[in-house]
Amino acid sequence: MEDSTRTAPLNLPKTKPIRCIVKLGGAAITCKNELEKVNEENLEIVSSQLRQAMITGSGSQKVIGMDWSKRPGKSEISCEMDNFEDQTLMDSSSFVVVHGAGSFGHFQASKSGVHKGGLHKLLVRAGFVATRISVTTLNLEIVRVLAREGIPSIGMSPFSCGWSTSERNLKSADLSMVAKAIDSGFVPVLHGDAVLDVLQGCTILSGDVIIRHLAAYLKPEYVVFLTDVLGVYDRPPSEPNAVLLREIAVNEDGSWYVVKPARQDMNKQVEITVAAHDTTGGMETKISEAAMIAKLGIDVYIVKAATSHSLRALSGEVRSSIPDDWLGTVIRFVDKRNC
Amino acid sequence: MEDSTRTAPLNLPKTKPIRCIVKLGGAAITCKNELEKVNEENLEIVSSQLRQAMITGSGSQKVIGMDWSKRPGKSEISCEMDNFEDQTLMDSSSFVVVHGAGSFGHFQASKSGVHKGGLHKLLVRAGFVATRISVTTLNLEIVRVLAREGIPSIGMSPFSCGWSTSERNLKSADLSMVAKAIDSGFVPVLHGDAVLDVLQGCTILSGDVIIRHLAAYLKPEYVVFLTDVLGVYDRPPSEPNAVLLREIAVNEDGSWYVVKPARQDMNKQVEITVAAHDTTGGMETKISEAAMIAKLGIDVYIVKAATSHSLRALSGEVRSSIPDDWLGTVIRFVDKRNC
Repeated sequence: MEDSTRTAPLNLPKTKPIRCIVKLGGAAITCKNELEKVNEENLEIVSSQLRQAMITGSGSQKVIGMDWSKRPGKSEISCEMDNFEDQTLMDSSSFVVVHGAGSFGHFQASKSGVHKGGLHKLLVRAGFVATRISVTTLNLEIVRVLAREGIPSIGMSPFSCGWSTSERNLKSADLSMVAKAIDSGFVPVLHGDAVLDVLQGCTILSGDVIIRHLAAYLKPEYVVFLTDVLGVYDRPPSEPNAVLLREIAVNEDGSWYVVKPARQDMNKQVEITVAAHDTTGGMETKISEAAMIAKLGIDVYIVKAATSHSLRALSGEVRSSIPDDWLGTVIRFVDKRNC
Repeated sequence: MEDSTRTAPLNLPKTKPIRCIVKLGGAAITCKNELEKVNEENLEIVSSQLRQAMITGSGSQKVIGMDWSKRPGKSEISCEMDNFEDQTLMDSSSFVVVHGAGSFGHFQASKSGVHKGGLHKLLVRAGFVATRISVTTLNLEIVRVLAREGIPSIGMSPFSCGWSTSERNLKSADLSMVAKAIDSGFVPVLHGDAVLDVLQGCTILSGDVIIRHLAAYLKPEYVVFLTDVLGVYDRPPSEPNAVLLREIAVNEDGSWYVVKPARQDMNKQVEITVAAHDTTGGMETKISEAAMIAKLGIDVYIVKAATSHSLRALSGEVRSSIPDDWLGTVIRFVDKRNC
């Protein structure tokens, strides 16, 4: 990954303050074991929580659906125009949503080796097309569920927005359209995508890298990763005795250590355990990515999607101090100069 | 519309020569009288013709499908990897596809008045979201049908690509990603879209305006408009005695006149007849847009989709001289200095 400052868009318009960037983890919003299937139940709860977190006092207000598509089996589109008459435009604070691929895109990408490049090969070119179809299908589904919940969501593909890489590292990323969409009152919904690579032709740009870049430029108050487990554990959470790490501190050099629960050598143990089962970039990548965001002074919460804990994290309720009954992992920068 | 030169991207990469920009007219690829319904039969024929026109000698080759999505009712994705082994990458000449909205998007846009702007109103903001959901749904469907036909199609939304307007006139349009996609061997598929407007907040950017701008910068050899009638008539084609205009000549000042069939005052008659029934920008807008493209020295063919005539137009077969048995409308620049 190049230094983010080198990929800065030169004329990024002044954006209104961003409250939160949310990552909808692929495992949390799709069915892991079924190809190209959205976890609708989870996604609907996540959308409802996002709405509650985003729109002040939205609990008492009627939801104004923004997906006016024809429903299966119906011949007409219905949108209740009356709903709009007595509604004032609520000031929704700015959120940006980024989602992973889960059971979308992976099959197509791995079968063809899109991440390794080589667009001159028919298989890779076909896989690139197939991967983009799969991830944009998921993106559209997510945008629609959010819109039904009254969130003014706008799908934005990193490929179309001009994001590209060089030897798999982010090379250019035009944030101007993302910033303009936010300033116009929309919630951009980005996603992990197949993109062009200057040196190897093409590759896969992960949602986590996108989040980090967005965080560096949009400087949100906090970042929330919604996953399918309670947070980061000291070993695979399926193992007996796996311990949930409640708080991780990040040093200025990007290294990190476990603050809570306090235990000697916890950091080392995590690294070893994670490395053993996680070759494709799961928890360790997640901690590293999160640490790089925390280093910017932005608190990161890793929390289980569609739980009371995720609602509290999204609402910013745990920002000042972490309640004892809140389950999740906080990753924070520790400025030693202030100690 | 501002002078196109003022919206020029400053650093448009050198693109390989574009053979053809194709407009898939909304009326030709969707069912006019049924909301949000694709005309699958037409779209499949159009895709097959595009493939034949695009890929030299593709007639004898097996189609290598590039949509590897899960089919309804199946639990697995099938892609025959063997197909790729014995295939060399055929040199497909560069095409760009732009489609209209047809029965997608119009309901959402007109109900909310997205074209008139006013994003501070909840109704307009919701309509903007709903319109984008509808047109991107259509875009994804078209990309998938093209990909199934072996065309390496890549959906690119003008909104995400940074296209915006000022008082409804095109203000900025970043063509760099479109150019890069073409250079990487893909076929960009753009569409009429809801976009941001500097002065009024938002509006609708039509596929025809997109085509004109693309033509000005990509300088294709020719442009084909696929519609649901044989071409441009001297009056609404449903009227008795409506005459198909076979050839229209465009002057340097953008004015135009009918060359074939030769008839006195034909031009004037068309204008009057068209204006009477066509308030929303149908044929007259189409001729004006086409005339502006022709003025650049690029031949424009307006032809009925999914016919033998459309295949001949797409293949460039009618370029040197128009065969007598070809039905359609040619719009060409007449450089008087050469007369």
